[in-house]
Amino acid sequence: MSLIVQKYGGTSVGSVDRIQNVAAKIKEQWSQGHKLVVVVSARSGVTNDLIARAKALSKLPDEREMDVLMSLGEQETIALTVMALHAIGVPAISRTGAQAGIFTDDIHTRARITRISGGDLLQRLEEGKVVVVAGFQGVTEQGEVTTLGRGGSDLTAIAVAASIKADLCQIFTDVDGVYTADPRIVLNAKKMHEISYEEMLELASSGSKVMQSRSVEFAQKYNVPFEVRSSFNDLPGTLVKAIDKTLEDAAIAGVALDRLQTRVTVNDLPDNPQAIAALFDDLGEAGLSVDMIIKNLGNGGKSNLTFSVTTDQYCRVEKVVGDTLKKLGSGSVRSAGEISKLSIVGVGMISHPGVAGTLFKALASVGINSELITTSEIKISIALDPAKADAAVRAVHTAFGLDKA
Amino acid sequence: MSLIVQKYGGTSVGSVDRIQNVAAKIKEQWSQGHKLVVVVSARSGVTNDLIARAKALSKLPDEREMDVLMSLGEQETIALTVMALHAIGVPAISRTGAQAGIFTDDIHTRARITRISGGDLLQRLEEGKVVVVAGFQGVTEQGEVTTLGRGGSDLTAIAVAASIKADLCQIFTDVDGVYTADPRIVLNAKKMHEISYEEMLELASSGSKVMQSRSVEFAQKYNVPFEVRSSFNDLPGTLVKAIDKTLEDAAIAGVALDRLQTRVTVNDLPDNPQAIAALFDDLGEAGLSVDMIIKNLGNGGKSNLTFSVTTDQYCRVEKVVGDTLKKLGSGSVRSAGEISKLSIVGVGMISHPGVAGTLFKALASVGINSELITTSEIKISIALDPAKADAAVRAVHTAFGLDKA
Repeated sequence: MSLIVQKYGGTSVGSVDRIQNVAAKIKEQWSQGHKLVVVVSARSGVTNDLIARAKALSKLPDEREMDVLMSLGEQETIALTVMALHAIGVPAISRTGAQAGIFTDDIHTRARITRISGGDLLQRLEEGKVVVVAGFQGVTEQGEVTTLGRGGSDLTAIAVAASIKADLCQIFTDVDGVYTADPRIVLNAKKMHEISYEEMLELASSGSKVMQSRSVEFAQKYNVPFEVRSSFNDLPGTLVKAIDKTLEDAAIAGVALDRLQTRVTVNDLPDNPQAIAALFDDLGEAGLSVDMIIKNLGNGGKSNLTFSVTTDQYCRVEKVVGDTLKKLGSGSVRSAGEISKLSIVGVGMISHPGVAGTLFKALASVGINSELITTSEIKISIALDPAKADAAVRAVHTAFGLDKA
Repeated sequence: MSLIVQKYGGTSVGSVDRIQNVAAKIKEQWSQGHKLVVVVSARSGVTNDLIARAKALSKLPDEREMDVLMSLGEQETIALTVMALHAIGVPAISRTGAQAGIFTDDIHTRARITRISGGDLLQRLEEGKVVVVAGFQGVTEQGEVTTLGRGGSDLTAIAVAASIKADLCQIFTDVDGVYTADPRIVLNAKKMHEISYEEMLELASSGSKVMQSRSVEFAQKYNVPFEVRSSFNDLPGTLVKAIDKTLEDAAIAGVALDRLQTRVTVNDLPDNPQAIAALFDDLGEAGLSVDMIIKNLGNGGKSNLTFSVTTDQYCRVEKVVGDTLKKLGSGSVRSAGEISKLSIVGVGMISHPGVAGTLFKALASVGINSELITTSEIKISIALDPAKADAAVRAVHTAFGLDKA
């Protein structure tokens, strides 16, 4: 008999039928004697409807009031899910974020969890009830409703699992688990049975959109093992947990691809640390993050800088950098076109010499000679011509032996 | 500068346009320096949609979860109303029932208010903000969401007005105020400038559907004067307040008509107090209330009973009474057809002899000779043939001089 936290996303609870499916899945576990806390999202589409109504009244609605509004979707789902459970004979009770004691700071629409009291969750579980908790929402110490921003329901599930010391946290989603590469690109990509928090984090920040980094970071910090699995079949998913590096066999765990990056080139920047610091400070203050930076010395005491940003941020980046260059009195900024970013990730990488050699040989075999490269302890990322990206992913996947089970 | 509580019903906030109208009305008062608490209902239709979704999942949804669900409508309106106020430059903040400290018992879907802490309402008003409070909802001392049942938003407004000692409570609705008779029946019915709590209560229980009795009772208990007025025009409405009877001039204040009553006849009931008590006890336990009871002696130690019930309850009444008669071993129950109930109401009645005489003369003039009559200190009610009801209301209205201003 285990204590399990399950999370179902917006697609999984998108209609009355699907809520009934989720209820049936819950009943199966509950019938085996497990204690269950279920975290649910808003029905897909509901939150967007609410936002549309707000925008009709105000171009820039107050964020505090947006939270009052956006928390409604999850509140609807908890009540409906409990009703569906009652209808099939499972005792259950709903809990809003506030009732579950999910306390946050007061940064509305993207609040951070500060503590979890858990409310009366353990007591209700002891009574034999399934407790259905609203994801994505919390409450400040002053009693104001907050929402947690993107990926908030995953975060709720992992935070609740940490606070009640659950044996397992299951994230039910619309993918089967975490793969060695995108199965739409690499036909024989394999679902990983397990993966470390570090690898999951690098994958999350490398275009593998299974989960937001913040949820994985939270799980790592509080050592909450969690499973990513599909709500539409009964196959086991991928278990994300702490893994001792020295026990690792394989050099790399997977290959990720991020298609939507733009390469930015800044020419004739004054070649001193203050100028470069000013440029990245201004970008940071505007909330814009850059990736894969390289610097070359130019002519006449100037330097040239190249870095990548996500394509949707390019216009703002151009404006901010342009303003900085005006202050500095020198330099020009332009887009050097779109790139894709291929990353290989693996905690074993550091203890396996020759990883970079294998990578570049594989890339060379499909005619790629990249100039933009970044590395971390467990990741190497390369900027690529988007036209060659799929072939590169396949070549790298094969070169590291990931095609075999 | 006054402290005013305003309440806007579901029709008044039924769309984005109407919410903007309400915001404009609020701004007008706020600009004059008044402090405002605004209580709002769910947009009309929203609560019914939520109920339909619940019924699709469960024939008899858990009442606790129904409250979690049904409280969503008002929570949406408070956020949208605040956004509309912000958009026209009025500082405002929303408060759920729980945040406004509206504590109730745990009788879900029809909870009773037990105390009001008011939360931080006065502090927010002091900061110059309009506070927008969700009507219809409260919270138990244990933190469970509750709803107050029919007329709940009016009750919220009056209870908040009592707790913050407001100078005035305005109930904005889809009628202009309280009339001496239904203006659709009596063309020259007059809007009353003011009326006592007692008269308003008798009118509320006599088919004048302006407000539920419980809100008027609450206002009377805590001596909260309130005004019933239209949200669609700027005309003054009717002020309901404590009025000293001895100062009253007119014998009666108004004429009310309740169309949907059914007369129930019970024949051959054992003629002893236990039998009659058993019958009304059983009806009371089933939550069925009866009105206008008369008893006649029948043959052979039996009695006949006639009373009226609201027509929508007749089927259940017949079933409950049938069961009681089976236990008693004697008697039969049947419907004696639909009736309308005409009531005249007025605190001055008791000090004006001849009121009954004037009433029966007026009724006789339109050919009515009723057998079902009940009286209270400030009301006389008569059962009528529904076909003659409109003519009767007009005749009585004229006979008591209500046609004149």
